[in-house]
Order: sequence, then structure tokens, then C-alpha cells
Amino acid sequence: MKIAVCQINTIIGDIEGNKNKILEYYEKSIQAGADLAVFPELSLCGYPPLDLVEKNEFREAITAASEEIARKSKDVGILFGTITEDYEDNIGTGIYNSAMLCYDGEIQFVQQKTLIPNYDVFDEVRYFESAKDVYVHKFKGETLGISICEDIWNDADYWKDRLYDKDPVQTLIDKGATLLINISASPYSYGRRTIRYNMLSVLTKDSKLPLAYVSCVGAQTDLIFDGGSLCFNGSGELQMLGKTYEEDFFVFDSAKEYEEIKEYEKSFEEEVHEALILGLKDYAGKTGFKRALVGLSGGIDSALVTYLAVKAFGSDNVHVLLMPSEYSSEGSVKDSKKLIDNLGISWNNVSIQPVFEKALEMLTPLFGNRPPDVTEENMQARIRGMYLMSLSNKFGYLLCTTGNKSEMAVGYATLYGDMCGALAVIGDVYKTQVYKLAKFINRNGEIIPNEIITKPPSAELRPEQKDQDTLPPYEILDEILKLYLEESKEIKEITEIIGDKDLVYKVLRMVDMNEFKRKQAAPVLRVSKKAFGYGRRFPIVQGWRR
Amino acid sequence: MKIAVCQINTIIGDIEGNKNKILEYYEKSIQAGADLAVFPELSLCGYPPLDLVEKNEFREAITAASEEIARKSKDVGILFGTITEDYEDNIGTGIYNSAMLCYDGEIQFVQQKTLIPNYDVFDEVRYFESAKDVYVHKFKGETLGISICEDIWNDADYWKDRLYDKDPVQTLIDKGATLLINISASPYSYGRRTIRYNMLSVLTKDSKLPLAYVSCVGAQTDLIFDGGSLCFNGSGELQMLGKTYEEDFFVFDSAKEYEEIKEYEKSFEEEVHEALILGLKDYAGKTGFKRALVGLSGGIDSALVTYLAVKAFGSDNVHVLLMPSEYSSEGSVKDSKKLIDNLGISWNNVSIQPVFEKALEMLTPLFGNRPPDVTEENMQARIRGMYLMSLSNKFGYLLCTTGNKSEMAVGYATLYGDMCGALAVIGDVYKTQVYKLAKFINRNGEIIPNEIITKPPSAELRPEQKDQDTLPPYEILDEILKLYLEESKEIKEITEIIGDKDLVYKVLRMVDMNEFKRKQAAPVLRVSKKAFGYGRRFPIVQGWRR
Repeated sequence: MKIAVCQINTIIGDIEGNKNKILEYYEKSIQAGADLAVFPELSLCGYPPLDLVEKNEFREAITAASEEIARKSKDVGILFGTITEDYEDNIGTGIYNSAMLCYDGEIQFVQQKTLIPNYDVFDEVRYFESAKDVYVHKFKGETLGISICEDIWNDADYWKDRLYDKDPVQTLIDKGATLLINISASPYSYGRRTIRYNMLSVLTKDSKLPLAYVSCVGAQTDLIFDGGSLCFNGSGELQMLGKTYEEDFFVFDSAKEYEEIKEYEKSFEEEVHEALILGLKDYAGKTGFKRALVGLSGGIDSALVTYLAVKAFGSDNVHVLLMPSEYSSEGSVKDSKKLIDNLGISWNNVSIQPVFEKALEMLTPLFGNRPPDVTEENMQARIRGMYLMSLSNKFGYLLCTTGNKSEMAVGYATLYGDMCGALAVIGDVYKTQVYKLAKFINRNGEIIPNEIITKPPSAELRPEQKDQDTLPPYEILDEILKLYLEESKEIKEITEIIGDKDLVYKVLRMVDMNEFKRKQAAPVLRVSKKAFGYGRRFPIVQGWRR
Repeated sequence: MKIAVCQINTIIGDIEGNKNKILEYYEKSIQAGADLAVFPELSLCGYPPLDLVEKNEFREAITAASEEIARKSKDVGILFGTITEDYEDNIGTGIYNSAMLCYDGEIQFVQQKTLIPNYDVFDEVRYFESAKDVYVHKFKGETLGISICEDIWNDADYWKDRLYDKDPVQTLIDKGATLLINISASPYSYGRRTIRYNMLSVLTKDSKLPLAYVSCVGAQTDLIFDGGSLCFNGSGELQMLGKTYEEDFFVFDSAKEYEEIKEYEKSFEEEVHEALILGLKDYAGKTGFKRALVGLSGGIDSALVTYLAVKAFGSDNVHVLLMPSEYSSEGSVKDSKKLIDNLGISWNNVSIQPVFEKALEMLTPLFGNRPPDVTEENMQARIRGMYLMSLSNKFGYLLCTTGNKSEMAVGYATLYGDMCGALAVIGDVYKTQVYKLAKFINRNGEIIPNEIITKPPSAELRPEQKDQDTLPPYEILDEILKLYLEESKEIKEITEIIGDKDLVYKVLRMVDMNEFKRKQAAPVLRVSKKAFGYGRRFPIVQGWRR
């Protein structure tokens, strides 16, 4: 069967726009001689639609759009992700995450999703009921076994511990499927594509069935979908691979033998570099921002974010603001200007010193005889935040925050100061990874000035301040954080690896104590398997002590 | 049976502290001659523990504490909420939200929770599996039917549409229970106690069984638990009612007849007044803040929040900051001073004008020839935010934000400006309700100056500005918002009630467009059935249009 893989980028809730895109790709599929055009999970409404699903008028609009697609279908099949309803038993939500197959002007077959993920960033049980059963569907000489995303992630042969007691794909195989199709919306994190490849390779090899796994692409606020649709033959060999980080369209002929593809995931730097650019580009594109603003400190974080903004918006549409104070080193402005030259972007330099001094003058009488402390440091960061937001308000810039994951983790950031902004571009990238990305960006010549990469990191909020006065070396900090946050290791295990129990304890405490800051942080582009934000939920007020 | 109702206030994660409190109340129960001491749902770890549940070391500490309680149990039973584990089948989380009954030094009985709520503020499917079955337990001549919170919310006779296909309490009745016990942690919203009463009255009348429904009390960040444990006889009559908004301990003798209690929920003003004070008090008490700070504008919102802070912290521990600008009316400072006198609190008056002018001087060259707009208004709000945060940093004050629900809904608030703060005290209270609360507070004499209540609301960020220049009258706005947010009505229905379709559309659009602000807002104390925050999840980037 000739399957047109329609790897599209949708806008959540834009049912009209998504429907039109689906119909446009359907037309393309017909032109390309396909038997069946396949679209990603919930492609009609975008994924994840969250509480929009709870709105009747939203679901009614989806139903109407689904029916319109059905009416427009011809003898070429169109299989897309949509929401269906069945309230017959008056129990539960009656709402289903479904794959709908249309041809000859009608809805011919609907398969509801069976495995409803409800962990990390997934809250699908909130909305969707589990399919009562799964069915195969005969179409153009094949017996299609259609599943939806999570449905294919519970193979008993592949997973030691399983989340669910059902295996809908095995059921489809048992029911005589000759061709497997999975429509998917699986958020990106580095390494995920390899896991997916391995799992699907085992499945297709064991079942001896070809598979078209159709992904979506594009960023939805904090979640990035990386595309990379995968088509396997019945020997576990990857036959076709969708483009990553962009829309794609191609026809996979399950009867044909292709040369096996063996490279499906690139290096951390290559992948995350693309992922972050897409994340930024789609946030702006889908909300209507045309230009970006970054506060350039002379440090590596803001340099990296500025570079990413240039890749996402173009150098004509990125503006940076230099906001030195008396504690800013001479190098900060000089290094920033070098970056500005390298990138060819517009800039302003406005000192915060006069406003800081005026604010101190006003507030010092209230401070009494209390010595300077973090207050004055935060004031500087907050004046910078005010400057940046003023420019953002005046000119309609998308303000990018520049905090990295290491800082966000331990609270080394000023709420309403450097945390101001619409999107935390590198909030899921550790400081050590920031350096890796900077070196990657410079692989063909200096873009981010070497001075910025080599100087010791500093917030420059007090004389001679260095990050390492307060924090452990980033190599150690990031290792602890990664073990704690991503690997879910606990104090005993982390101490065994790191050695210094007091340090581990101190870092874990810092992470736990800073939930209140992260609660008020901008959305973080997710590139790891555990990002700050929606997928990580800890109480702000709590007394857990190890 | 003599049941000691132990309506306690726990700290999430403070297993040691919670365990000690449970043992202390158990001792009290023994002294009071009880047969059985009963504690709320998950009382050992506090509710909701969120992702702490995913930590092995956290669950190990809970298991150890549960076993310690068991070892210390005597012939009087102790029934408390805890987490238990069973990974036998290697499928799912293997973690259960359980009621544990101990006596004679041992764990005698464990009932897992059957109905796992996963809507609004509840994400329990993320953590907990559903009980495989429910069992009764014979103890001291009674056959106990023990259930956990949601388990009792699925009565087929009471609910037309049911969320679940099981009714564990009916199963307990069918298995011969002679006495029903429900351990609960049900977040407060106005009207909830009446629904609970009605449902439990029907249940006990129909089943002819007495019931002890044991609630927790206390605020956990944004969620408030109101106490008010309910004990019914087998005729649907309320026999005993726990105190509201504070801990309580009393013994309910299920064999005794008490006088029927008919008043179980007070007026909106009385209830919400107490709820908000508890919310503020517990946020501070559980995080260690001793003093509060409020930015006093002369408007009714900040006046109300200041009053609530005085009730929560005492007048000696509340400081207010007046921060007039050139647009502040004379009345603002005068009215604020009157409130300060009435409350007997400390204050400072620091103009933002010099800092605002200095900031304008620095930024005006960057603004080019663009006319003044919302930028300059936001700058003023952000300088105030910076002032407030500086005092908070310097003196360790808990900064209370003063935005109400109407403003939060339509985005009539400045991010990093008046939205600065640790807790949005009245973020779930509509403007019209703010007035109601103010009048209630003044019922025995003026506390909030009448001038503040009667003047037209204004942000005072430009000359002669009034809220109603930009927003519809609050009576209409709030009605639209309530229909949309709480009643989940949609544009057609709301228009039928309000009449003006364009206005309804405009308001709903404003709500939808301001997710990005609310994403970065302080936690909101929840007093309605749909508050901004955790229980309401909409995509920031989305294209849904009606």
C-alpha cells in the first residue's frame, strides 16, 4: 500500500486552519498516487489541546470539521487524528482521542485510543476515556491495524515494567493486521528518537509487519515535536525517515524494499540546536510576534539565546539591549558588541546605574541600617527587567529569557528580573550544555566570541562576583542535577556517584526550595525528558526533608 | 462505636511532623475513651503530595512512619491516610492512596482508594492505581465500611452523570457494613459543603447506616481545606459537625442520638473571609514567613488584602507601602492612611515619580517618536513591584499580590508589576465579591474606609483613568466571567443571558488571550469551583476562535 506520510505542523485550537492544511495535504497525496494519506494524532485540533477539550463548542467545531473532511474524501483514504464522543453509558467523560478513516465521502472507520498517558507532561485521563476495544479495518487489499501514539508503547517484549495491562497493537496483530499504522504526537526530548526507533524495530521484526509511524512537527508553547516519522518494513529495518524540525510529505510503499536507514538521531548539539530554534520560531509564528528582544549581559547564556533568536527571526528582526551597571566589567560591553557585529543585529546600550541610584536613594531610608545584601542585586536585575519589558511593550518584541536549567534548578535567578520574558529558550539546557552548544555553533568559525565562552560566569551584580562563589563548579552541579531531575535518582545513589553528601544534600535542597520561583517562570522549551514546567509538579509549600 | 474525629492540619511532605501529630491525637483519642481514632486522607504525607509520590525515598519514609504508628497502636484503633505499594504484577505505578487501620501493635487492614479523581485540581491517576477490590473489616462489634474521599462521590441515586463505573461504597454496604467511614481531603470552594452534606445525607438515609466523614483542614499553597467533618446517623441526619477553618477533635458515638444539625454552611462572605485568612496564614506559617507586606494603592483590592493580612499575621506584623505617582489622586494617600489608622499597622510612603522620571529619561531616546501608551503605565506598575520586592528581600516580608479574579481573567494587571508577590490572596474573588467582602468586614463599624468602597475603581496609571474606560461594568463583567469560568457556559448560552454578543465575545477573547500572564502569576487561593492555576489548563499558544 502506498501511504502518504503527512507530517504537518498544526496550531492548537485552530480547527479551520488545521482542517485546511489537512485537506491540502490530502490533495497532494492524491496527486502523488497514494492509497492512503495519514496525519498525526489529534491533527485536527493540535496536540495537546488541554482544557479546550472540555468545551462543548470546541468539540462541536471539531465534529463539524471531521464531517467536512469525510464529505470531501474520495477513493483515496484519509486517516487523521480527531476527537470523537460517545456518551451512551452516562459514565465518564464520553470523549475519545481517535483516529478517523474516511473515503468515498464518508467516515468509514474510527479507532479510539486505548492507552491514555497520564504522566510527566501528559494529562490525557483528564479528558479521554480508553477505547472499549480495537479493530482492524480492511482497505484496498490490506488489513490495517491502526493505533494512536501511546498505544504502541506497551510492547511486552520490549518493556520490562509496563504501564498498562493492555497491548492494543498486539491485539491488532492477533486480529490479522497486515499493515500497522500509528498516528502520533510524541514530544521531543534528546534521545527519544533512538528509543522510539529501537522499540518500533523490535515490534516490526517480531510481528513481521510493516509500519508507518506518522509524527507531527512543530512547537506548542513549551513542547517541541520533532517530526522524524518512521516507516519500517516487516524485518525491523527503517525504510523511510521524515525530516526533523520541519514539515514533510512523502509516500511510503509498504510493498517496496528500500535501502535500510541507519542514522536516525544526530548529536545532542545538532538536535537541540534545531529543536530550540523551532521552539522559538513557532512560539512567535503562532502568536504573531515578528521580532525578538534579548538582554545581552556579555555572558554566554544571553549570547546563545541571541544567536538562537537570529536563527529563528532573522538578523533584521532581533534587537538586543545592553544594560551595564557599575559592576559590569569592561569586557561585558566589548564582548557583547563583538557578538552584535558577528550577528549583524540592532542594539541599544542603556545604563541601569542612574535608575538604580535613584531607586536606592528612595529606598535607603526605608532600609534603615541594614547592610547591602541580595536586595540590591535583585534591584539591578529588576530594573533590567523593567527596561526590557518597556521595549517589548513599546515595539511589540517577544522578550526571550536567558536563564539556563542549572540556574533555574537552584534558583540562581531573579524573579521579575532576569526571569522576565515570554519564553525561557534555554531553560531546559544545563550550563555545561550551553557551552557545548556555543562550541557547536562556532564549529565553522567564530560566531559567539571566544571571550564570552572562556570567561568565568558571573551575574555581575556585585563587585568581582563569580557564579562559583555561590555554586559548585557547573560540571559537578549539572551532574547532580541531571541525576536528580532526569534520572530520578535519590540522595543515596547520587552521593555514591558524586561522593560529597553535604554538597548533594545542599543542591537538592536548593532545587526543592525554589519551586516558588519556577511557578512564576516563563514556559520552558522542553528538550530533556524532565523539564521544569508542566511535566514536573511539586508543592510550593512543603516540608519534605531527607 | 465511639469514633474520635481527628480533623488535623498537616504539612505536605513533613512526614515526621505529621506522624507526631497523628500519634498525639491518637493519645487524645485514647484519653477520650474512643474505640477508633480516624484521620483524613493521606494525613501522613499531607494532601496533595504531587510528584513527591514518585520519589522512592519519600515513599520509604512514609512506609517507615506507617509501621511506626502500627507498632505504637494499642487496643484502640487508629485509621489514617497513607501511601502503600504493591508491584506484584509489574504493571502500572504499583502505588496506592490508602486507609490504614492499626491496633494491637500491627497493621490490621488496608483499604486502597478505588475512585481516582483526575479532573480540575486533581491528578491522582498520575500517581495512584485503583483498588482491585474493597473489603469490610470487623472491629469491636461493628463491620466497618472504609472508603477514601472520591470513593463516596459516585452514588448512582444522587448523581445523574457519573464519572466512574464503580461504586465502592455501595459494594461495602452490600458486603454488610454496619458503619461507614470516609477519610477525606476535599478542597474548599464556596457551596461545596452543601453539596457534600446533601449527598451524604441521601447516602446515609438510603443505606440506613451511620457515617463518619473525616476532613482535613488547612491550606496547602493554593488549595484550602475547610475542615467541617460530618457525622450522620442512619436516617440522613447530621449529628456532629467539625469546626471550619481550624483543627478539631471530637468523639462521635454512632450508637447515640444527637440533636440534628441543620446549619452547615454560612454566607459567602462569612465562609470566604475565613478561608482566605486561613490560606494566607498557612502559606506563611508553613514556609516560615512571620510578616506580610502589601502595596497599598488606595483602591479596594489592596485594602481588602491588607485587612486579611492583619487577620492572618496580626497588626504588628503587617507593613504597607504607599507608592504614589503624579497620577495618584489626593484621595489615594488620604484613604490609605485612614485604613492604616483603622488597622494600626506600620507604613511607608515612597513616591515612584523620581525613579519613573529617571527611567523615562533613560528610555525615551530608545522609544523614538512613539507616543506614550501602555508601556509607560506598565513602567509605573513595575517600579512599584521593584520597590515592594526590595522591601520583601530586605526584611523577609511575604509580599501579597492584590489582583482580583476579574482583573486576572481579562489581563487587567501588569506582569512583573502589580502581579509581583508570593500569593494571590484574592485572585479567585471577583471584583463584585471584593465589595461584598468589604461591606461584610465593615458590618460592625468602619474598618475599610467608606471612601475606598464608594470611589470608582482606577489603576491610576494615567490621568483620570478609570477601570470602566477599558472594561465593562464589573456587575456585567463578573456575570460573564462566572458563567464562562465556573459554569462552563459557552458563547451562545452566555449571550442568551447577557444579551450583548459582541461584549461577551470580547470578554471571552480577553480571558483566552491572557493565559501567558496567568502562567507567570503567583499561586491563587482557591475559593470557587474553578480558580486560575493548577485546576484550569489552557494552552498559551493557541488559535481557538469561536
